[in-house]
Amino acid sequence: MAARQPGGILAPVATIFGADDELDLAALAANLGVYAESELDGVVLLGSTGEFATLDPHEREAVVETGVEAIAGRRVVMAGTGAESTRRTIEQTRHAAAAGVDFALVITPHYYKTRYDRAAMVRHYQMVAESSPIPILVYVMAAYTGLDLATPIIAELSRHPNIVGIKDSGGHAVKIADMMATVEPGFAVLAGSANSLLASLVLGATGGIVALGNVVPAPCKLLHTLYEEGRLDEAQALQLRLMAPNAAVTTTYGIAGLKAALGLVDLHGGRPRPPLLPLSDEEHADVRSTFAAAGLLGVPA
Amino acid sequence: MAARQPGGILAPVATIFGADDELDLAALAANLGVYAESELDGVVLLGSTGEFATLDPHEREAVVETGVEAIAGRRVVMAGTGAESTRRTIEQTRHAAAAGVDFALVITPHYYKTRYDRAAMVRHYQMVAESSPIPILVYVMAAYTGLDLATPIIAELSRHPNIVGIKDSGGHAVKIADMMATVEPGFAVLAGSANSLLASLVLGATGGIVALGNVVPAPCKLLHTLYEEGRLDEAQALQLRLMAPNAAVTTTYGIAGLKAALGLVDLHGGRPRPPLLPLSDEEHADVRSTFAAAGLLGVPA
Amino acid sequence: MAARQPGGILAPVATIFGADDELDLAALAANLGVYAESELDGVVLLGSTGEFATLDPHEREAVVETGVEAIAGRRVVMAGTGAESTRRTIEQTRHAAAAGVDFALVITPHYYKTRYDRAAMVRHYQMVAESSPIPILVYVMAAYTGLDLATPIIAELSRHPNIVGIKDSGGHAVKIADMMATVEPGFAVLAGSANSLLASLVLGATGGIVALGNVVPAPCKLLHTLYEEGRLDEAQALQLRLMAPNAAVTTTYGIAGLKAALGLVDLHGGRPRPPLLPLSDEEHADVRSTFAAAGLLGVPA
Amino acid sequence: MAARQPGGILAPVATIFGADDELDLAALAANLGVYAESELDGVVLLGSTGEFATLDPHEREAVVETGVEAIAGRRVVMAGTGAESTRRTIEQTRHAAAAGVDFALVITPHYYKTRYDRAAMVRHYQMVAESSPIPILVYVMAAYTGLDLATPIIAELSRHPNIVGIKDSGGHAVKIADMMATVEPGFAVLAGSANSLLASLVLGATGGIVALGNVVPAPCKLLHTLYEEGRLDEAQALQLRLMAPNAAVTTTYGIAGLKAALGLVDLHGGRPRPPLLPLSDEEHADVRSTFAAAGLLGVPA
Repeated sequence: MAARQPGGILAPVATIFGADDELDLAALAANLGVYAESELDGVVLLGSTGEFATLDPHEREAVVETGVEAIAGRRVVMAGTGAESTRRTIEQTRHAAAAGVDFALVITPHYYKTRYDRAAMVRHYQMVAESSPIPILVYVMAAYTGLDLATPIIAELSRHPNIVGIKDSGGHAVKIADMMATVEPGFAVLAGSANSLLASLVLGATGGIVALGNVVPAPCKLLHTLYEEGRLDEAQALQLRLMAPNAAVTTTYGIAGLKAALGLVDLHGGRPRPPLLPLSDEEHADVRSTFAAAGLLGVPA
Repeated sequence: MAARQPGGILAPVATIFGADDELDLAALAANLGVYAESELDGVVLLGSTGEFATLDPHEREAVVETGVEAIAGRRVVMAGTGAESTRRTIEQTRHAAAAGVDFALVITPHYYKTRYDRAAMVRHYQMVAESSPIPILVYVMAAYTGLDLATPIIAELSRHPNIVGIKDSGGHAVKIADMMATVEPGFAVLAGSANSLLASLVLGATGGIVALGNVVPAPCKLLHTLYEEGRLDEAQALQLRLMAPNAAVTTTYGIAGLKAALGLVDLHGGRPRPPLLPLSDEEHADVRSTFAAAGLLGVPA
Repeated sequence: MAARQPGGILAPVATIFGADDELDLAALAANLGVYAESELDGVVLLGSTGEFATLDPHEREAVVETGVEAIAGRRVVMAGTGAESTRRTIEQTRHAAAAGVDFALVITPHYYKTRYDRAAMVRHYQMVAESSPIPILVYVMAAYTGLDLATPIIAELSRHPNIVGIKDSGGHAVKIADMMATVEPGFAVLAGSANSLLASLVLGATGGIVALGNVVPAPCKLLHTLYEEGRLDEAQALQLRLMAPNAAVTTTYGIAGLKAALGLVDLHGGRPRPPLLPLSDEEHADVRSTFAAAGLLGVPA
Repeated sequence: MAARQPGGILAPVATIFGADDELDLAALAANLGVYAESELDGVVLLGSTGEFATLDPHEREAVVETGVEAIAGRRVVMAGTGAESTRRTIEQTRHAAAAGVDFALVITPHYYKTRYDRAAMVRHYQMVAESSPIPILVYVMAAYTGLDLATPIIAELSRHPNIVGIKDSGGHAVKIADMMATVEPGFAVLAGSANSLLASLVLGATGGIVALGNVVPAPCKLLHTLYEEGRLDEAQALQLRLMAPNAAVTTTYGIAGLKAALGLVDLHGGRPRPPLLPLSDEEHADVRSTFAAAGLLGVPA
């Protein structure tokens, strides 16, 4: 499965915590069991939505192992394996590969961003790519990391045979088009959120990694299908309809909003790990009414 | 003509200067005469590309009057009429209307941006709209002004019957989709550059105001046509082909680059007004080779 | 007077408007008459605080002429003469010189900021300096313009004999120290606000252009005096005491806040020109209580 | 020692790596042995300069234990204990306390910055402070984290008896003054770099945590002493003289520059851990000439 180009609709799955903020691997596995029979093409473990940043190393390994086992080959499995150091990134990537992950999604190191120039970033990704048994994708998430990669860097990285794609969460149409115009043919560009999915597709993206897919896989996949079938008016209407619910589980309320929404569709949600705070009652009601207003509760898409 | 929704492909035309950096209205009129017989649906006078910011009040009036006369009703004419004060904006808008302009494109005031909140911006645009004999469009150009308008402000402005559209030069797919999902039906969203044209169209934009249209009107219009005809593969390929030449006349070399390119296609170009500097010989050669590499010199699109 | 190094405490004076937002030159002259007998070392006409950005060319000339006449040689007079084009900047600078202004304060052009690199900015300031009969100061106001000048550019400009200083409104201690370490000896660095005055002085600034000086000249000047006399504990305490009232008339409420405060000390204030909005009653009360809490109403500093 | 207010000049010590980028604890201990007999008032382990971000949990513990042992009570020892999760921050803080560290320096969590509002940050720091056996300082490093804390948040945190100070690496005079004007009396504000030391001191800072102190402790401490003795002209001259060498080991060349400079003064340096790259030969020569030009090589301060 790893040999083909990554694409379609993947959900960056939420990591579930129980009492005392400990990992609840059973709940995670239960959610994944649902996704493995859903319209989703795949899942991403340990993405930003998966709260990888607050997980200790042994917790990250547990999530990866649980996730691969729960999906059991029914869908593509990506895993976030990036870390601040090149060596730790390599270790995590090798662990993911050994656990059976299909693709590693490697976020940019970012703490010492003032010194992470083209030479540093190219060397980092090439070292990871060389040492990885599975294909890797570059993961740019500037809203959280404060680090963007200029298009020429991405174009250079796309020449490496084991760097097969990128998730760019910026949602900037110009950046997406610039990438598509300069990367190696076959290099996959994936939208980073449902809110930029249609614009990314029309520019040549192969799909998207969309947090909203955790909650409502069907309409996310439908948007992809409508585009592929050339039903542009329907695709446009659906894209606009998904904007508000997508914002509720990403930019407006973040992971706490996503977990609140999971509860609305009978999946495991709960609270994010502190310092992230859960939603207030008013915020929770807003999430519900936003999904209801978009016709996403209790009815097929 | 003013009654219909603005759309299609418009070029924000370059203002031409002669010796001593004085206005060359004859050269401007000559270029406009070409555009009036071109594939363009219209022109925009006194846009950012038209160097409005370095023109004195009487020069702005001369450009508007010359432009309307040169176009002579053959194409839609917009004119930039924004100023830092509400009163001066109203004066310039009324002058444009009196001169025969179809639509006023009103850039956000921006100097005292820390105090230009929703209340200030809504009051400004409503006062201008109330006093304008012609329909107005909001013009957001955050890269130059440092001021963006949040989507809810734009949605509120779209309810006014004399505010008929927006040119948003951000090129951010999420912002465009958020606008389309919340503005009044019939409110026109126009792409602000050729580099975001296809993504804007798929989200519901009615067209674009594209600097590249000054140089090569035909391929810019063709991109719109291909999209409208559902020929998405061709549209995507053309969009990607236009990225590099578009950058050469906008983000990379700015107005000096655009004027250099005008010279390549036998239109009047020349130098921008200082402090903008003309291109070096190397930069000029780069503009030429970029257009040549994209197949835009000497051959039909 | 123009031959000496600019320094001390200057107020960037508010421009006063009457009914229908027209200039009230008599009110401006009355305020200036008070300043000319105050602890202030000088005044700045047509600064950002003076709403230069919303004044038409003939209004700017009227303010300069009125200001010089009202001060009548009793204090240093600076005037803001910057414009987006080099040619208009030169015209306004020459007019100010002819009217009797001592120093021209030339704000960076900024609209086409993506193209205003070192070469463009150096050429601009050198052309202005060459053609100016009076010494000029560079004015960097990045919060409004979005354009900062890197220290090496400032150091290069400081080598020109007719560029005698800079007002940097950033208030960043590192930038101030970098400038002081690299500019030509004798080049004056002026703090751009009362909130950074003491830190600027300890790094070698010759004084400051401080909006708060419009309202309470005495304590602003006292802070300078305390520093010069080496009374650092008192200077520190006064600096901290001025932070809240300074914020009320600058960063928090802007020009509307300043004009409200002018009313508290029996100077002409009124409303700013739209799109700037006047303060609400609650905001007005907050300005009053802030000044009262700092002991700046009705008592000597 | 922990009961007194933190202040004076502390160096955020470099973590030293050997072949294969492994920790070289002996080299670290050797450097610390020198610092313990130097003009420095203390050291900070696991700061940004100490590359904490690329260290695994067990490596962080080893650095803390080695550091406390090497200093052996001769100087104040702080340690960076912040992590993305509140729980991991508490664990690391408790470990540092158990190891004998005097103060914990707790960097802001920052990955999910869009959701780290006042409520989240106050709860985080209060939970850490409540559970910490030693006093903690807040560490704001917006250039790396992309997260600043507004002054009112800092003022609120300063009311907690176990939150005793802040290191703010912004170097912004206005922010420092705003903090000094609003924090609890006795709350220590520390400059975050030698480049803002004098400006911070004049506003009431108790000292600084300065990377340059790794290389040349004596002049850094001298700057503090000159200020305290009221020798302002000498202090100003020294501050300006330190700007260029400070930039070489911080903003310009980062940790690689600092490690190169350590080699110039016969301390252990070496290479940073990838993805940080070592300096080129030209960059290395620039560091040397910068220190030499400032008179910091081979001569007493």
